[in-house]
Amino acid sequence: MNTEKQQTHNARSEVTGVAEAPDDAPGGPGGGLFGGMFAHGRVEDQVGDEAWLRALLDAEAALARACARGGVMGAADAEAIAAVCVPERFDAGAIGRAAAASGNPVVPLVRELTRAVGGDAARHVHYGATSQDIMDTAAVLVSRRAAAVIRSDADALCEVLAVLTERHRSTLMPGRTLLQQALPTTFGLVAAGWLEAVGGASARLGASAELPAQLGGAAGTLASLGEAGPRVAAAFADELGLAEPALPWHTDRGRVAELAGALARLCGAVGKAAGDIVLLAQTEVGEVVEAGGSGVGGSSTLPHKRNPVAAVSARAGAAQAPGLAATLFAAQVQEHQRAAGAWQSEWVPLTQLLRVTGSAVAWLRASVERLEARPERMRANLGLTGGLPLAERVTTDLAPELGRLAAHDLVKAACAESVDSGRRLVDVLAERLAGRRTAAQLAALLDPAGYLGAADAFVDRALSAHRSRARTVTEERR
Amino acid sequence: MNTEKQQTHNARSEVTGVAEAPDDAPGGPGGGLFGGMFAHGRVEDQVGDEAWLRALLDAEAALARACARGGVMGAADAEAIAAVCVPERFDAGAIGRAAAASGNPVVPLVRELTRAVGGDAARHVHYGATSQDIMDTAAVLVSRRAAAVIRSDADALCEVLAVLTERHRSTLMPGRTLLQQALPTTFGLVAAGWLEAVGGASARLGASAELPAQLGGAAGTLASLGEAGPRVAAAFADELGLAEPALPWHTDRGRVAELAGALARLCGAVGKAAGDIVLLAQTEVGEVVEAGGSGVGGSSTLPHKRNPVAAVSARAGAAQAPGLAATLFAAQVQEHQRAAGAWQSEWVPLTQLLRVTGSAVAWLRASVERLEARPERMRANLGLTGGLPLAERVTTDLAPELGRLAAHDLVKAACAESVDSGRRLVDVLAERLAGRRTAAQLAALLDPAGYLGAADAFVDRALSAHRSRARTVTEERR
Amino acid sequence: MNTEKQQTHNARSEVTGVAEAPDDAPGGPGGGLFGGMFAHGRVEDQVGDEAWLRALLDAEAALARACARGGVMGAADAEAIAAVCVPERFDAGAIGRAAAASGNPVVPLVRELTRAVGGDAARHVHYGATSQDIMDTAAVLVSRRAAAVIRSDADALCEVLAVLTERHRSTLMPGRTLLQQALPTTFGLVAAGWLEAVGGASARLGASAELPAQLGGAAGTLASLGEAGPRVAAAFADELGLAEPALPWHTDRGRVAELAGALARLCGAVGKAAGDIVLLAQTEVGEVVEAGGSGVGGSSTLPHKRNPVAAVSARAGAAQAPGLAATLFAAQVQEHQRAAGAWQSEWVPLTQLLRVTGSAVAWLRASVERLEARPERMRANLGLTGGLPLAERVTTDLAPELGRLAAHDLVKAACAESVDSGRRLVDVLAERLAGRRTAAQLAALLDPAGYLGAADAFVDRALSAHRSRARTVTEERR
Amino acid sequence: MNTEKQQTHNARSEVTGVAEAPDDAPGGPGGGLFGGMFAHGRVEDQVGDEAWLRALLDAEAALARACARGGVMGAADAEAIAAVCVPERFDAGAIGRAAAASGNPVVPLVRELTRAVGGDAARHVHYGATSQDIMDTAAVLVSRRAAAVIRSDADALCEVLAVLTERHRSTLMPGRTLLQQALPTTFGLVAAGWLEAVGGASARLGASAELPAQLGGAAGTLASLGEAGPRVAAAFADELGLAEPALPWHTDRGRVAELAGALARLCGAVGKAAGDIVLLAQTEVGEVVEAGGSGVGGSSTLPHKRNPVAAVSARAGAAQAPGLAATLFAAQVQEHQRAAGAWQSEWVPLTQLLRVTGSAVAWLRASVERLEARPERMRANLGLTGGLPLAERVTTDLAPELGRLAAHDLVKAACAESVDSGRRLVDVLAERLAGRRTAAQLAALLDPAGYLGAADAFVDRALSAHRSRARTVTEERR
Repeated sequence: MNTEKQQTHNARSEVTGVAEAPDDAPGGPGGGLFGGMFAHGRVEDQVGDEAWLRALLDAEAALARACARGGVMGAADAEAIAAVCVPERFDAGAIGRAAAASGNPVVPLVRELTRAVGGDAARHVHYGATSQDIMDTAAVLVSRRAAAVIRSDADALCEVLAVLTERHRSTLMPGRTLLQQALPTTFGLVAAGWLEAVGGASARLGASAELPAQLGGAAGTLASLGEAGPRVAAAFADELGLAEPALPWHTDRGRVAELAGALARLCGAVGKAAGDIVLLAQTEVGEVVEAGGSGVGGSSTLPHKRNPVAAVSARAGAAQAPGLAATLFAAQVQEHQRAAGAWQSEWVPLTQLLRVTGSAVAWLRASVERLEARPERMRANLGLTGGLPLAERVTTDLAPELGRLAAHDLVKAACAESVDSGRRLVDVLAERLAGRRTAAQLAALLDPAGYLGAADAFVDRALSAHRSRARTVTEERR
Repeated sequence: MNTEKQQTHNARSEVTGVAEAPDDAPGGPGGGLFGGMFAHGRVEDQVGDEAWLRALLDAEAALARACARGGVMGAADAEAIAAVCVPERFDAGAIGRAAAASGNPVVPLVRELTRAVGGDAARHVHYGATSQDIMDTAAVLVSRRAAAVIRSDADALCEVLAVLTERHRSTLMPGRTLLQQALPTTFGLVAAGWLEAVGGASARLGASAELPAQLGGAAGTLASLGEAGPRVAAAFADELGLAEPALPWHTDRGRVAELAGALARLCGAVGKAAGDIVLLAQTEVGEVVEAGGSGVGGSSTLPHKRNPVAAVSARAGAAQAPGLAATLFAAQVQEHQRAAGAWQSEWVPLTQLLRVTGSAVAWLRASVERLEARPERMRANLGLTGGLPLAERVTTDLAPELGRLAAHDLVKAACAESVDSGRRLVDVLAERLAGRRTAAQLAALLDPAGYLGAADAFVDRALSAHRSRARTVTEERR
Repeated sequence: MNTEKQQTHNARSEVTGVAEAPDDAPGGPGGGLFGGMFAHGRVEDQVGDEAWLRALLDAEAALARACARGGVMGAADAEAIAAVCVPERFDAGAIGRAAAASGNPVVPLVRELTRAVGGDAARHVHYGATSQDIMDTAAVLVSRRAAAVIRSDADALCEVLAVLTERHRSTLMPGRTLLQQALPTTFGLVAAGWLEAVGGASARLGASAELPAQLGGAAGTLASLGEAGPRVAAAFADELGLAEPALPWHTDRGRVAELAGALARLCGAVGKAAGDIVLLAQTEVGEVVEAGGSGVGGSSTLPHKRNPVAAVSARAGAAQAPGLAATLFAAQVQEHQRAAGAWQSEWVPLTQLLRVTGSAVAWLRASVERLEARPERMRANLGLTGGLPLAERVTTDLAPELGRLAAHDLVKAACAESVDSGRRLVDVLAERLAGRRTAAQLAALLDPAGYLGAADAFVDRALSAHRSRARTVTEERR
Repeated sequence: MNTEKQQTHNARSEVTGVAEAPDDAPGGPGGGLFGGMFAHGRVEDQVGDEAWLRALLDAEAALARACARGGVMGAADAEAIAAVCVPERFDAGAIGRAAAASGNPVVPLVRELTRAVGGDAARHVHYGATSQDIMDTAAVLVSRRAAAVIRSDADALCEVLAVLTERHRSTLMPGRTLLQQALPTTFGLVAAGWLEAVGGASARLGASAELPAQLGGAAGTLASLGEAGPRVAAAFADELGLAEPALPWHTDRGRVAELAGALARLCGAVGKAAGDIVLLAQTEVGEVVEAGGSGVGGSSTLPHKRNPVAAVSARAGAAQAPGLAATLFAAQVQEHQRAAGAWQSEWVPLTQLLRVTGSAVAWLRASVERLEARPERMRANLGLTGGLPLAERVTTDLAPELGRLAAHDLVKAACAESVDSGRRLVDVLAERLAGRRTAAQLAALLDPAGYLGAADAFVDRALSAHRSRARTVTEERR
């Protein structure tokens, strides 16, 4: 009966060339019991323990090479160090446990790394750096890699939303304010609103995730690198493809806070769209269905239910963002040159915020890809209020010949009669305006399709803004 | 030179009989790279995936037995079900991944459980329950078990604090307001303040963790259990040793919110004490040292450093609580009979809040057990302001013979001279009061040991309140 | 047509004897542009500047009298001080501005108070106290007074909910999970859920608002009161009708955090019920109407709209609680004997949290008092799914004669046919079960009124729990 | 003795030409009892009720003129409307109270405005707009005006910090990690860190505060403006000097969330610097003094205290930001075309977040302007650890002739001896290295002034980044 879902899916695939189904991906090793819901999609591979370990080792390798470029280490030593900087050689759990003694995982990692390097090169491991240099740089790498995956899913989601927007630009549905029907709108404009919100938030995330490298040494002066300090710091950033900051930012956490804000903003956009889907999928509204296929969203005991599980999971993930972001905002207050607790309090909330954001975006993408619109229900719902929302149009039409006040009073009385009697407004008006307006004229005035204002123009603008953002992304990736 | 730490440790062991060193415990299977710091101590075993799985299966087993007691299932079927409700038979990761299709882990767990039970009994698995009944009851079990461990660590911590309070009831130190020295206090009273805060918060956690069982069926009416519903629900709670609620609380999350508040309160108490320790351990203050033993808190490149890593880790964990609690408070707003996202958003934050609270308490316990007080530095610091804090005592002493105003002016002028000239206040006063007061009289007035007010009485009260709480706990456990 | 609202209103008045309409009350002097919405009802009078000023002066007066009782001040001086402790004599704005120099409003208030007392008694103003003693004690008074008003509104709300629960204990409506219709429930049970949530949270607020007095002097030792300290502190608490704490709690903020949690919990209960009302009032659902009377909730341009403005305002207020509570939880981490910022950061969020909670409760009360239930719409909505939710009953009924599996398959096929063809399930089943079950038998099985499980029993329990709480409140007030 | 404060003040005045003392400004009409602390400085005039009223009326006036430009209203009518759009004609309190009936203040404001306009023009008041159009546009105006004032204070603060940075680029002080002395740094670099954090956050606020106008009509389609809709919307934005958005953003709140994040970030930067000042001002550290002048920060009973009240107030304000921002992030989840509670929940937290941010910035500015650095205490504190932080330099120096391992062991043993015996490290080393190094050579190696790494280069970079930001601001204002 309804093949819209399949069409949407095909449309997406054509446009984006993205074939993978993010909602079938495993939750990743760190997923666990709640991983299917909150470590959903591809982000888990960028934020789990292995990803962190990889980032920490990337930072150590880059440090060694930067030291070589800066002239404070031999190139052979640097390569000897870099050669063992592979996650498979290390045990995240063991390092994590050992971190209890030192207050961060870098100290035991460096110990293990030094052992693995061996020989003369071993004494150059972690040269000139403090633990926080490596942790922060790894956090930057993890954040950027996770943000890239999140944005890729968000971009794919936007493509599907753009298709939906275009297809439904003339599909009438009730516009709702305070959850009451107000004036007509189109499902295309509704989808355009989701598109604009998600697309704007994703673009902002792109900018906010561009965090720089961190290298300052024990007190932020690079003292132990002597006059080579700035040279090594520049090379370090360059090795990692990161920007170099003006100063070490050991206790200037504004960029981390900005990233947190960008993630929480994106979660807000996801939560808004997912919430609308849940509302539109209500039994009594029925304007969309999240068609999950066999085994998805169904209920063995309640055969009539079509739970919008993807949208629900998107909401549930997105709802965790504000609290996590608040923790990161509060963690900015760090003492002196390196902090006694606030810095350490960032690691888990930042990781978790990246995780739930990526998961929520992947879920919303799945929900929208599965979405079947029901134009006939939209239209039927629009009829529930019997044309009352458009009464003001009749007033405007009558004003020139009756005077505005008389027109207003006449229409108002007709509305009241319609509500009280249950008769259709068009019939009441036809009776009261016999001789002035025909039933056909009145029906035209009360036709919601004629009262959409700038809906179509707004759809064009949203699609144009989307294409402009998509172009920018493509150029960035070149 | 200083054997206080060892004494404290012994004292603790004698009093509590708790021998394990929580800070040496492994981070648990779910610990990972950050587990050493934020899944510290024994709480991880109660909140990790395995603990959740155990709790879910405990709930299913109790449901089967309750159905048998309620007459809607044969006892043999119930026991057949209960017999396979053992965590080792199930794969949390696989269940977690499968949860993506249904929106919660109970659906795939029930599927696996049904398969494991086999035969005729299989069709009685999960009888009459909805997924949320099992998840919520499991959350209650996890919370109560975690809270028990947290409280046990908090109680052990309180014992050490009580010893510290008693031992240092006469140890003078500067009282500080706005981080400025104000009037003298004692280290005993400082420790008493930590004791009272942690003890009070732990007691409150005990009450708040007493959540009831959950059994309401798909819409909270227990409809599919027919007239046996209330009977089965009562037996279900009884099987688990839980209270039975007046109503199913599928969308009445007040108790979860209260638990969140109690955990965040305890984290606040921990963060306060840990923060004080960090401040007192500053290089320039030096009134306490967190003596971590070899390899703990030291720095290979900075041999003079004695980082208070346990206190820092306690702070870092505690700082994550307010944001997590906020998420749980916000999640109370759940729709109709069962919610579309807000409920699901509780699982990870609740688990994480239990984890960081348990971890923070274990860390503070480690910090206090390692703590060496430095009475000589306390006394020396108290001398830094040269008696100025006690100037008001001289005024009071002189007032009867000089009149209050004249006394006040004279002392104020002496203080100003002391500050400007750098001379000791006692000398300036002796000069200005020659003939009225001897140097010895003035020294007595300016002796901080004589200006402690009710410090000693407050120490008694704190110890008494502690013993009263400890008695209650002992009685509860009987 | 529908006179339910009036009946509800009368019922409430009879039961509670509360005649005032909280939603018509002025927003209070501190209300301002947003006061109508977020300083709604009677709480504003307890939390505005004047209320704070009154509480501060109550504390100073009690301190003077306590000093007299403790023997450190003459009774006449105490009465001279107490006599001028009236808010009208002071200018909150001027004191607020002057607070900028000292970091809290007590310093300028004491200066003004000293001036107002004059003469010899003047030098005894604020005797032995530190600013925080007065601020904290005033915060306790403000909190308790506000909590009393909040609870009084919550109690009145509960009375209306109890009436609603009783009246609609047999009113069938759809139970909804994930915003999809699931099984039938009753509007009585829905109201009982709101009652239980609000009533439980209000009771908890009562316990959490019982904060003790604060008197510790500059460093928490009461040093300047000498040996009279404990005596004066006891008398101080007694004068104010407050409990005396074991220790001064200048930097032990656990009780403030607990109060914050209790307020946020109550806001959650309010937000949940208000959210349900908004959902039930949707144009497409129409099961309740918030009948606001002329000018309330209407729209001049959209005559058909009946916006549930009271419920919306309740939600909007309640949504501000989690963030404010998080600030107060975070503020627990206070340094040493008195804090350098965290303490001061409590004042506005605590005041605002009391304000929005009181306002949200008053709004929900208004919403429920205005609420018109529409049983006919509830019943009609329940028919939308054509009996599918009750299909499992037919299976259970057939199992003994067909075998469980065959019964299940037959019913499942019938459901599928019903969904695909649009025919009523009862008709499809009648056809397929011709000879086994009559249409009447099938209709009985599919009758939602027969599948309410323990709904009625739960209603009884909720009413009983409510009456028990109400008795406790009455006894407390005696 | 110390005239630094005055110099700093003069330097600032010369550089910025800003003469006003923000800390002496009245708290504004909305200030009240807590206004001196948390509505500090000039921001209150931009966020109080009067400022909101002005912004609402600016929006109505711009709407009228835009309608005229769009051809849907006569120019004379538009001017008649604009002429009465002056705040003094309206009573914010009365409007606020009346807002209770409609759910927002715009409905009663429009009623009053319509009355004030009178005559024929009256029926064109608020033409084509919905309440939210006016509220949101007013929120944008309030936010931008407040942000301008906040940034102006932040810029002035940065100027003072730049002077401090330059002056103290060679002032040695201990660098501290985990509140333990680590390696030497300079007070100039510390100030540079504050400068970079505040300057970066302020620049980000500038970008984030550029919110666009809002005009969408009842359902976001501008239906009642017919084909003139887009024209009027463009003119509306133009009248107010605002950007025009692609779509109405009634329920796309990403920009508001981004603004919230930018404010919370700035508060973090302020809290960090203020926290450092409080720590440096500790009695036992004494490296800075907040010289408040008579009556500021002093204590009548404790004459030795110099409370850093401005820094404390800055911290207290900044600490309120994360919770408020979390509320605004959570409020993004808004239903359909206009929300039922989440939107309304933004008003107070957004206003309050602007207020506390502005207040905190003004306080930090006051604190830094009052700041006296104590280079002699910095140097003395650096001596407390007796050269131990620089021990690694000796190792490096000896390695070529002794071999690295032997050098390391020798130095480590010397450090241990120094710590155990209390003898100076230089003396212990001179003894152990007799014949290899002279005391003078060792003293040079242990001289902190020689171990500052890139501190000076970083100072240059921070000043350069500051000047570049300052240029941008100047250009923007042209």
